[in-house]
Formats: sequence, structure tokens, C-alpha cells
Amino acid sequence: MNILVLNSGSSSIKYQLIDTAKKEVLIKGKFEKIGYCDSMYSIKDKITGENVKEEKKEFLTHKLALEFILSKIDLNLIDAIGHRVVHGGEKFCKATVMTKELVSELEKINDLAPLHNPANIKGIKLCMELMPDKKNVAVFDTSFHNTIEKPKYIYPIPYKFYEKYGIRKYGFHGTSVKYVSQVVNGLLNKEDSKIIVCHLGNGASITAVRNNKSVDTSMGFTPLSGIPMGTRCGSIDPSIVKYLFEKGYNTQELFEILNEESGMKGICGISDNREMTEAMQNKDKMAELAFNVYSNRVSTFIGSYFVELEGVDAIVFTGGIGENSKETRKRICSKLKALNIHLDEEKNNSIKEDGLISCEDSSVKLYMIKTDEEMMIAKDTEEILI
Amino acid sequence: MNILVLNSGSSSIKYQLIDTAKKEVLIKGKFEKIGYCDSMYSIKDKITGENVKEEKKEFLTHKLALEFILSKIDLNLIDAIGHRVVHGGEKFCKATVMTKELVSELEKINDLAPLHNPANIKGIKLCMELMPDKKNVAVFDTSFHNTIEKPKYIYPIPYKFYEKYGIRKYGFHGTSVKYVSQVVNGLLNKEDSKIIVCHLGNGASITAVRNNKSVDTSMGFTPLSGIPMGTRCGSIDPSIVKYLFEKGYNTQELFEILNEESGMKGICGISDNREMTEAMQNKDKMAELAFNVYSNRVSTFIGSYFVELEGVDAIVFTGGIGENSKETRKRICSKLKALNIHLDEEKNNSIKEDGLISCEDSSVKLYMIKTDEEMMIAKDTEEILI
Repeated sequence: MNILVLNSGSSSIKYQLIDTAKKEVLIKGKFEKIGYCDSMYSIKDKITGENVKEEKKEFLTHKLALEFILSKIDLNLIDAIGHRVVHGGEKFCKATVMTKELVSELEKINDLAPLHNPANIKGIKLCMELMPDKKNVAVFDTSFHNTIEKPKYIYPIPYKFYEKYGIRKYGFHGTSVKYVSQVVNGLLNKEDSKIIVCHLGNGASITAVRNNKSVDTSMGFTPLSGIPMGTRCGSIDPSIVKYLFEKGYNTQELFEILNEESGMKGICGISDNREMTEAMQNKDKMAELAFNVYSNRVSTFIGSYFVELEGVDAIVFTGGIGENSKETRKRICSKLKALNIHLDEEKNNSIKEDGLISCEDSSVKLYMIKTDEEMMIAKDTEEILI
Repeated sequence: MNILVLNSGSSSIKYQLIDTAKKEVLIKGKFEKIGYCDSMYSIKDKITGENVKEEKKEFLTHKLALEFILSKIDLNLIDAIGHRVVHGGEKFCKATVMTKELVSELEKINDLAPLHNPANIKGIKLCMELMPDKKNVAVFDTSFHNTIEKPKYIYPIPYKFYEKYGIRKYGFHGTSVKYVSQVVNGLLNKEDSKIIVCHLGNGASITAVRNNKSVDTSMGFTPLSGIPMGTRCGSIDPSIVKYLFEKGYNTQELFEILNEESGMKGICGISDNREMTEAMQNKDKMAELAFNVYSNRVSTFIGSYFVELEGVDAIVFTGGIGENSKETRKRICSKLKALNIHLDEEKNNSIKEDGLISCEDSSVKLYMIKTDEEMMIAKDTEEILI
């Protein structure tokens, strides 16, 4: 099947046309700054040979951008569309063929992910309008975490907040975690497999996976919590919010700070892991501090999931930082010796493609695996339609 | 030395006169509901033989209560007064002989612990007034955690919040943790000792201690964070605060809920561990859920501190729940087998006094130790005056 995978964001559209049988990306494109006069796009099309890099072109609406995208594709090639949707709430616990009624249902939980879901839904609605004969499947970032059990998703706050508002742990990065844990499960080839997935990108989460099922994850009600990230604070003492309110910050200001000015950027002024690593190597003390805060939180989270899973077979590093930063992997693993986990420094330094980076005597296998959320969305979309 | 240990709360005074040489409590008293017409007190005095239990007597001010207390003690017996003070901030990092100037300094950080420090300071001021010739030593709940290193006490939020407002992890229960970890160190008799102290009471915290020094602790900027407690939420996704603001709660309401209506009480309506355990044994599903949330958070915290300390020699249970609830200890330890930690069920069921509750083949020793913050305050007070 050829699946058009669409990731419609608030001011962007990313898409891939994927041949699921061959696991091949036929077309890949990215449209950014939609709605602004300086919007631009890139397209790499293996079918027509078109290759456009960061071309400026004004797209004032998502509809105009999507019409432009579709004008360049033979629509007969598209068997169905798979949409990335960030939040499925409790109702949408697996990939779902969308109808107009279901879109209305999905809109009801927009306030659980106000920055993402409305944009994702816009993509679904536009595809329904522009390609009325094709099926649209919504694939949710939350749905892989649907197997997390109640004692782990219920917050110790009044239970009515769960019943009335759906406040609970949902977890995110589910599509990525599902993909890499499937890859690692194939490599382990073991019954009752226990894997910790460290998805370390600009957003970052850690997930405990047992037999391909999510057991617990570090993100929570929203993607703000868990470990610190490029610009997000992760879990902090909630009283800090109260204290800063009393110092005069309002809700909007403060949560913008916690989402966009915190994490690594908050400590050392640099959110990008590569730049931060470079600054650290140049003896920047604040970058060193931020790096230590980060790696310590990841290491100790691994410790807590080691307990949660009652032992671990493999730990996987994925996402932009997990895949590319040997320094981050090294620092995290250097704290894990008490769990008899040993990184092979040589492999860690040289690895370019998916593979093992632990020593032979490590009782837990360490892997670097490149995530591929689009491939997973295409597979999930195909699976539901067959 | 005879030290009067004073714990002056917002509407209570607890005190003990302790003979530090004999480690003996000579007088012990508790005054509650000070400022209300139904205030009452208890006194047990080994010197005079007086034994009053929950006698009603109106004390409209702390001063009236303290005058009453002192009228019953031969003041010549008191060598010095040791005061429990919850928050020392960054300035007061160890027990300190207080002067009027230092009291003014201490008052400057009242907003770090607005419910506790003003009441603690009131106790110091009253003692200075009523016993002008005696020395007053402030012993801080935060000071044992003064050895925590920067990467563990800095939050991933803008660094200016630390510089300007002192927002960082402080940690609490320090006096209790210091006491029990000293006891366990005596039992272990080992160089480079690594201990995890689970102080589980109405408030609850977990601390990683290496060689009698705090390495990390679960409470943070305030005693609200970390593991869930009787009525406190512990660490949660900060976005929950934002979401509930948008639903119409104001700051005061919401933080009252997070401090007083959350934790175990929030989930199952019961904050008391004994009642909750009983309800659970009577098949109350919500009590079972709350118990699971609690024990899971404690177990996984132990896992994270196992990594933090790079291995552990002993885990100690203390505080009201840690000392008395065999069910809680059992549930927490049942998740630790992957760390080769094994509870001896028989010992766990029968233990009444300080001692070992782990199996011989457990690679980590498990202890139940009764905490004694007053004894520790008396010792700290004596130490600084000798």
C-alpha cells in the first residue's frame, strides 16, 4: 500500500508518501511558516525526480499548501492517508478510521492539547475535503501508552479531577516508542522482553516497555512533565508555580517560560544539545551544569524503570539527541554501573546505523536505534485498513 | 547537658527536656490549638512526677502557653534551648546560635516556608524574652541537605529564578534523616556507606545518604514535592496547575487542594495510612488504588536513588508509616527483587524495636528505625555549644 503520512502542525505541514510493502519513502516534503509571508517548502520526490530545497513561496493557509502538495502527486498513487494526532485522550486509544462524526468527537478534547490537536484535525478535515474518496486514519501519539495501568496513570490529586476533566497521565512519543521497541524486540528475539526507551529529542521522554506494551512513561498529562528537555522544565515542585505567581507572573507568562524558556535553555541559555555539548567542551560551566542536570535525571529515571519492570533486557537511545550525541549517551550510562550496565565506548563513538553499543559483559543490552514515526504511522494505517 | 527542645508551630508547641549525656527525656509536653478557646495540653514530667493527659485549658497566645510551660520547670535545669526551624534557606546551612540580628536575617526568608518559619521564629523570640540568659540554637530541617550538589538542587527553569528568589531544591526532614542514618551507620560499621532513608509519615520523603551526607532527596523547594503523601500530591505535571486555573480555580484554592486534599486522601478519601490499609483489606478498590500509587512511587524512587548512589548498603524505613506499617514496607519491597533486595516477612511482621527486616541473602540490608528528631536537635544543640 502507498500511505500518505501527514503531520499537520500549527504553522507547518510535513508529509511522506510511503510504500509500506517496500518500506520505501517515495515522496517527502516539508512546508514551514504557513500563514506568514515568508513561508517556504522543501520536496524530495523519487517518482518525478523533483528536488526542491527551502524554496520561498507564500502559503497563507494550510489549504493552499495542501492543494499545492497534492497538485504534484498522482492521487491514484495514494491508497489512504495516515495522520499524526498528538492527543487521543481516553476515547481514542488506538489508530482510528476517521469520519465526520469522529472528528467532532476528537475536537471535544482539544483542550488537552491546545497547541497540537486543532492543527492535526485541520489536516484531517482538509484531506476529507480535497480527497473525498480516500480513507483518513488518525494515529495518536498517546495510544501506545494506553496499556499503562491505573496505579501509574492516576495522579495523587482529587479523583474527581480525573473523572470530570480527564486529568491523568497520557504519555506521548508513543508512535516513536512503538517503532523502536518493535525493532529492538526483533533483535532480542525473547519472550517477556523488558525495554527502556529513551526518546531524547527536543522533547524527551523515557518509557518502560514490556512485551511491546507501554508499562509507564515519563511524560504525563501533557508533554511538559518528566525529564528536563531543550526548553521544557519537566517535573518540578508545583509550589514553584505558586511562588512565581506571588512574584507577579501570570499564568500565560509563566507557562510560556516553563515550556519555552526552561530546561537546558533555562540553565545555560542553550537549548540545542550539540551547541550545549560544544560549550561544555569549551569549559562553559553553566553548560556543564545543564548537561549534568539532564544526564542525572535520565540516569535516575532509568533506575526507577529498572525497578518498575523488575529488571531490564535492553535500553534504547533514540530521537535527535539519543541517536546523535555520543557524549550524552556516555554520561547517562556512566551512572548505571551499579545495575551492571556497561557502555562499549568504541562502539558508542563510532556507531552510525542502528545497533548495539554495550560491552559483552553488560547485563543489559544498550542500543542506538533511529526512530521513524512516519513509517510507524504508515504501518498502523495499513494495518487498520487491511 | 540538659537541652530544652522546642517545636513551635502555628497553633501548637511541643517540647522535651532532654538529658543528652543519659539520652533521656526528662519532661515531654504538647500544647495544641493555641489561640482557640478549646486549647489543651499534655505533660509528662519525670522530675516532678506530673502526668497530665489532654487537659483542656485556654491559651490564647504562644506566650501564655510558654509561660505556663516554664512555670513548671526549674529553669536552672535548662542549659540551652534547641529550636526546630523548618527552613534555613541557603544562608543557614547548619545549626546556629541565634542572636536578635540573626533572627532578623532568618525572618527574611519567611516566604520560603510561610506556614512554618514564622511560628518557629516566634518560639525563639519568646525564649529570648522569657529566659534572657540562655542560649537559643536553631536547628534546621533543611541543613542536613546542604551537602546536595548543584546538579541535583538546580531546577531546569531560568537560572535567574535561583539567583533572584532562591528557587532550588532544599529538602526537608533533614533532622530525622540525619538521626536514622547515624544509627544505621553505627550498625553497618562500614567505610563509604550508602543508605536510602524512607521517612514515611504524614509528610514523606526519600533521601540518598552517602557517608552521613545527603546526596539527593525527594522533597524540593517546598515539602509539597516528591512522593505522594497523606494529603499532598508530590511531584506532578505542572501543566495540571495551568489546566485547573483555566477551569476557574484560583491560586489559593488550588494549592490548598494540592497540599491538603490530595495524596492518598485525594484518591481514596482517606489520608491516614492505618485506616487506608484497613479499607484496602476490606476490598475497598479506591484504597487499593491509592496504596498502589503510593508504594509504586516509593519503590521507583528507591530505584532512582540506587542509581544515584551507585549501589546501596541499606534501606531504612522510618516515620509513622515507615515504623508501623508492615503492609506498606512489604508492598514497597515486593517490587525491589530485581535489585536483589529481599524482605524477611517474619521479621517484618513481628518487629517492634529498631532492627533488621531483610533476609540474609538480600544484597541490601533493610531496617526499621524509629526516628527521634528531638534527640537529634538536642545533640546538635549541645555540639555547637561545647
